[in-house]
Parts: sequence; structure tokens; C-alpha cells
Amino acid sequence: MPGDMTADTTTELHALALVCSLKPSPEPSSSELMARQVLDALGEYDVRGETVRVVDHDVKPGVRTNMGEGDEWPWLRAKVLDADILVFATPTWVGHLSSVAQRVLERLDAELSETDDQGRPSMYGKIAVLAVVGNEDGAHKIIADSFQALNDIGFTIPANGGTYWNYEAMNPKDYLDLEKTPDAVEGTTRKLAINAVHAARLLKTRQYPPPG
Amino acid sequence: MPGDMTADTTTELHALALVCSLKPSPEPSSSELMARQVLDALGEYDVRGETVRVVDHDVKPGVRTNMGEGDEWPWLRAKVLDADILVFATPTWVGHLSSVAQRVLERLDAELSETDDQGRPSMYGKIAVLAVVGNEDGAHKIIADSFQALNDIGFTIPANGGTYWNYEAMNPKDYLDLEKTPDAVEGTTRKLAINAVHAARLLKTRQYPPPG
Amino acid sequence: MPGDMTADTTTELHALALVCSLKPSPEPSSSELMARQVLDALGEYDVRGETVRVVDHDVKPGVRTNMGEGDEWPWLRAKVLDADILVFATPTWVGHLSSVAQRVLERLDAELSETDDQGRPSMYGKIAVLAVVGNEDGAHKIIADSFQALNDIGFTIPANGGTYWNYEAMNPKDYLDLEKTPDAVEGTTRKLAINAVHAARLLKTRQYPPPG
Amino acid sequence: MPGDMTADTTTELHALALVCSLKPSPEPSSSELMARQVLDALGEYDVRGETVRVVDHDVKPGVRTNMGEGDEWPWLRAKVLDADILVFATPTWVGHLSSVAQRVLERLDAELSETDDQGRPSMYGKIAVLAVVGNEDGAHKIIADSFQALNDIGFTIPANGGTYWNYEAMNPKDYLDLEKTPDAVEGTTRKLAINAVHAARLLKTRQYPPPG
Repeated sequence: MPGDMTADTTTELHALALVCSLKPSPEPSSSELMARQVLDALGEYDVRGETVRVVDHDVKPGVRTNMGEGDEWPWLRAKVLDADILVFATPTWVGHLSSVAQRVLERLDAELSETDDQGRPSMYGKIAVLAVVGNEDGAHKIIADSFQALNDIGFTIPANGGTYWNYEAMNPKDYLDLEKTPDAVEGTTRKLAINAVHAARLLKTRQYPPPG
Repeated sequence: MPGDMTADTTTELHALALVCSLKPSPEPSSSELMARQVLDALGEYDVRGETVRVVDHDVKPGVRTNMGEGDEWPWLRAKVLDADILVFATPTWVGHLSSVAQRVLERLDAELSETDDQGRPSMYGKIAVLAVVGNEDGAHKIIADSFQALNDIGFTIPANGGTYWNYEAMNPKDYLDLEKTPDAVEGTTRKLAINAVHAARLLKTRQYPPPG
Repeated sequence: MPGDMTADTTTELHALALVCSLKPSPEPSSSELMARQVLDALGEYDVRGETVRVVDHDVKPGVRTNMGEGDEWPWLRAKVLDADILVFATPTWVGHLSSVAQRVLERLDAELSETDDQGRPSMYGKIAVLAVVGNEDGAHKIIADSFQALNDIGFTIPANGGTYWNYEAMNPKDYLDLEKTPDAVEGTTRKLAINAVHAARLLKTRQYPPPG
Repeated sequence: MPGDMTADTTTELHALALVCSLKPSPEPSSSELMARQVLDALGEYDVRGETVRVVDHDVKPGVRTNMGEGDEWPWLRAKVLDADILVFATPTWVGHLSSVAQRVLERLDAELSETDDQGRPSMYGKIAVLAVVGNEDGAHKIIADSFQALNDIGFTIPANGGTYWNYEAMNPKDYLDLEKTPDAVEGTTRKLAINAVHAARLLKTRQYPPPG
């Protein structure tokens, strides 16, 4: 029973998927598809989920929490602050995370100096997981770069915190166009969800102590 | 009081530092120095620590838990299995983690298929943290590559799970030769220790549920 | 004598620096400063140089040469097509190349399918060099990611094709604020310039043969 | 006609493939297979090729050209010095280049201080190309890390200097076991060979000028 996995299963959790596709809504997006699958897997453990396509919003370049007039990051930031689990979903371009994903990381960089009244950075206690798709290889590297940045910003990474898919080298295919999600991907996404929920419940019940 | 930080402070923890210097003992090593500082910081929270200089041992190339005659990895592996917290310490060479560090990751790659009787990979519930030194830049990237690999293998990464030092670009200096550990490094190491202990205690009390 | 270095010194060369700062003009930018120093060094070998601050222009997300209404990439792209040497200059954010730099790489990704009448991708024969600054470490990794992407797109990388600067770990300082460019950086920039000019002259005189 | 592509086609070239498999000879190796295909493609342009399986030799950890008793790097180093084109071939492990490949890069790191009588680092004028195989993704990242290191050491990277193959994510398959080399890989390898030969001939005829 999923519900048995910790004593704290009554803790309500909220997950936010930031989908970092280069394509605005309503264009179909492979990273959005995978993000939704992660949210569905989390939903099995009573986690409420929400998806935002970042490129639909005007996130200004910069490294402050608010870059002023017209900047829509503060609205997105409020959603991140409200979430227990961040699902960071990005496509692979030239082997890297997308420019939209990097923009999000740059804006989150400000959070290390945003502390609670006990000196804890604002993202402490939150979980980050990754969902990467590509029509070229790059997922392991993108997971690496994202984990490093998100962990530096204060997120905790649960065991097996990444799920991903790409096809054979130089033989591009879109995740969207698969007839069926491969079993291995589905299994990885399920493991990720179980672990994310477990770690999120533990940390929500017992937040990190304040820095010394 | 450090001792107050969770209800489970009586849980005894053990940390293993795998020092991935290219230099055998007893040559002085900057990565060993930083690893020891991490162990000292963990020691303040009643964590017993042990250091191993990996290059002192004959770790054979390969991706199995035991590569046969003369392979000393099985001895090191037993130490990893016995630890709650892995301190992965590496120097920076050509901007990358050392060949010794990569060798360790290759050998740990076998652990995903080593599961307990409930199907959990052998590293589930363990914490990994990073200590990187260099006389050229590369720490963020090494932390990225290490987190991705160690997390894929089953380790959990606590908030702010990396500490590091390097000096000005093209102006090499060794961590060993500093008169005093910079305050910022010391503070980062302390945060890392607090968070690693907190996450390790939580997971030792409540292990991840078995994969679905 | 610089002028003696090849028989083809009469070949006129043009260099374009794409400065990928997050800050619009006229805010001072460390990456622009370093880009200008690279252009100055190239200027000693009769290379005409031009700088563009990319964030001053509306470069739309996407991977086509023209993303339609309001997209200013086609104007920038024309400048890239016109250049013999691309100076790719980026700051370091969360240890990565900037979102603006990644945006440029995404847009350049289209060039592999843009071929001349003999089937050569549009960037064949052009040289790419890197200039990276940061108030945290990351230069080697950014050079890695940029070289891989730019080379895949068709650029040639001359020996020692990167120059960079960052200061001590966790002790942020801006390149802009240095009283004097460190000698080691200046020397590296000069080597880069000599090699870029040499390779550019060779390839301008003898373009790569068409793909088989 | 390949033979027409430059005026200097009489220049004899030599290519060395360093195969960085974890498996000693005579175990079959996917990276060796791909390295041989690159050498075959180079052979079409009158380049003599040689392959060395690095792990068959005792390359000691360290960053000097000779690490003393029992170190077989000096023998390998002589082969690198003798080559015009280095084919750096590595498998993908935990998403990274192999520990054997990193060992080679560490040993090559010494070459920046090994200069000819005009002050040029020993690798100036040589070409480096990459061949990466994996049963998990990572090729773009490995190409990135290798290009950055090899370029820093003094190698020049010709346009489209990397070839690679891996299969679908989480669906491991070995390059060795393919019935036929995919056309796209074959085409990429051929392009790489044409460009490597072109750049090597240009630089062999006109070496980089000495640093200023």
C-alpha cells in the first residue's frame, strides 16, 4: 500500500512541474508529456500536481527574484515556494538543457540569499526531480547540471531522482510520437515518484535544522 | 544544540570518505585534507568517520562488484555498504573529476542490480556528499557529474551537499598550502555536515519503500 | 612578425563577438570586457572586430533560422554568416553558460541543415573561440559545452581556443573590477588570437572539401 | 577525388587511436570497433592508422610525462607525439568518459609545459577527433569534456570532429552487436575523416606560429 510507506501519510503534498520546452502552448511538447506522467505517478501517492509551461510567460533575464516591470517570474516563484516537490522538465538541445531551463535556474539562484527567520534558504526542505526528453542524447548530462544547480540552491535529491528518454543516436524520434511509454521509463518514473514522496514527507515533518 | 536537531539523534551514523587523489599515501593531498575537514564537521554530530585513499588500493577497471584476482574493490565496497554517508572527495584534473574517482563510480555502477530482499538497490537510504579541490576551476561541474552518477546508483543528496575550493583562474594554488581554511568554505562544509546528518538520520529511521 | 605567420596574410578577416551577458547595454558587463580584449588581440593581426550584446535583441526561443514575427535572430545570423571568427563570450551562472548563450546555440543548431551548393554546412570554415568570465567557477565546463555544440554546428576550434577568468571559490569578484588584467589571462588571450587567426587564414584559403 | 582536396596531398599522415575501453584485449570492445572504423575512413585518404588498447598497458596515475618505474605511458606518449591525428575513443560509463580515458587526459595534461624550441606546446599542429559508444546516453557530454581537455592541451578540433553511437534510453545495446553500422553513423564518421585529414594537412604544412 503506498499509503503505508511512512507514518506521515496524512501530510498533504504539492508538486509543481516547470516545463522548459522551447515551444509555447498549445504546441504539443514531449517534455510536457513526460512532466505530466511524473505528476500522474506522484498523484498515486496523493500529491496534487500542477504544470506550467515556462515559455508561455515572460521570465526576464537576470539573477534577482524580481527583475521589475513585465517580469512574470515572481508569479512563477510564488508557485515554486508553494510546492513541496519541483519537477524540472526540459528538452535536450545541442546536448544541453534548454535556454528556458537555464533561465529558470538563473532566477532560482537568488534563493540562496532568501532565508527564513532561522536562516534557512527558501528551498530547504523541498525535493527536486528531473524529467528529460530529447531527440538527441544528453539526458545524463542534463540531469547532472540540473541536480548540481538545484542542490546548490537548496533542493534535496531523492534516490533515483531522474527519469528520461531519448532514442538511438542520429536517429531522432520524439517522445510524443511513441505509441506507448517504454516499460523501463514507466518503471523509472514510478520509482522516482515513490522516492520523491517519501523524502518530501520526511522533510516536511522534520525540516533541516538552521545553519550553525 | 546539534543533538536536538531530530528526535532520532541516538541513531549512530558512520561516514566513509573515499579520497580520489592521484597521489598515493603518504604524499600530502588537498582532497584528503578537505575530506578530513568534512569528517570533522560530521564528527560534531556524533558521526564516526573513516578515510580511504583509493589509489593506495588496486581497484581494477570494470563494472562488476568483483573483477577477480587481485581486485581490491570488494574490500572497499564492504566499507561503502557499511557507511551511512559517503564523502566523495576528488581533485580537479583538466577540469574533470579524477580518473580514480571515475573508477569508483564505474565500480559502484554495479550496485543498481544489487538489491535487498525487498528489491531496493544496495545504496538506497545512504547519503552522498562531495568535496572537491583543484588548482584549476571545475568544482561545480565535478559536483554535477558526481551527483548524477551517485544519485543514479541510489544515493540521496541532501540540501547543499557539496563543498569545494579552487583559486583564481590560471593562478594555481593548492588547498593544502593555504594558511587557513577560508571562512566561506568552512561555513559551507558545516552546512553540508548538518544537512547530511539530518537526511541520513531520517532515512536510517525510515528507509525508502521498496520499488512498486 | 605577426604578418609573417602565413603566406596568406593579405586575407582580410572579420571577427564577431556575441556577448551573452544577462545584462542589457549600457550596463557594464565582464563578458563584454573580455570579448573586447579578444577582439583587440585579434586586431593586432588585422582582424576587424564587432561586438553584439545578444540580450539587447529579441532572440526568440526555437531551433529554426527564423522564428517569425519580431524575431531578431535573422539579423544576428547574418552577422555570424559574415564572420570568419566567432568569439562566443558568456558569463557563468550556476556553473553553466548563460541562458542567453544557450539560446544562441539553439538558434545556431539549424545551421547543420543549411548547406552551400556543395553540401557544406554554413559554418564550415569558420573558427570559434571562447571567452568566459564568472564570479563562481565553471569556465572549463562552459568551454567544454560550447566547443561541443559549436563544433557539432560546423565550427573549427584552434589550439588553445578558450580564454577565461574567475576568482577564488566562494569569494566572488567581477572581472570588470580588476585593476589590471592578470598576465596569465592576457597571455592566454594572445595565444588564442594568434591561433584563431592562423586557422582562419588557412581555412579561408582552403575550405573543407564537400562531404563525400 | 579525395586526393584533390588540397595541394598538399603528398603529405603523409599518421593517425593513432587510443581506445579507452575498460576491457583488456582480446575481449571484444565497441569503442575499438568504432575507432577502427574511423581509422578505415581516414585510410581512404592515405592516412596510416594504428590502434592501442590503453588498458592493456600500465598507465600510472599522475600528471607528469613519466611517473617512474613500471609506467608505460612514456611508450604511449611517444606514439602520440608521432601522430598527426589522435582518435580518442571511449565508452560511456555512468554517462561519463571512462576512467581509462580520463587517465590519458591527465597524463596529456603535462604537454602544455613541453614546448618545442620556439615555445610551442608539443601537441600544437595535431588534430583530435572523438569516437564515443555507449549502452547508455552521454556521447555529447563526453565529446564536450574531451574537446575541452584536448584543446586545452593543444590539439585542434576540425569541423564535426566527433562520431558516436548509443541506443534508446534504458534499453541497452552494444555497438558491437549491431548487424550493420547505421548509415547516419557511417556518414558522420566519413565527414569527420575528411575534415580531420584536411585540417591535419593544412597544419602540417603551416604549423601555428610560436606564442607571442
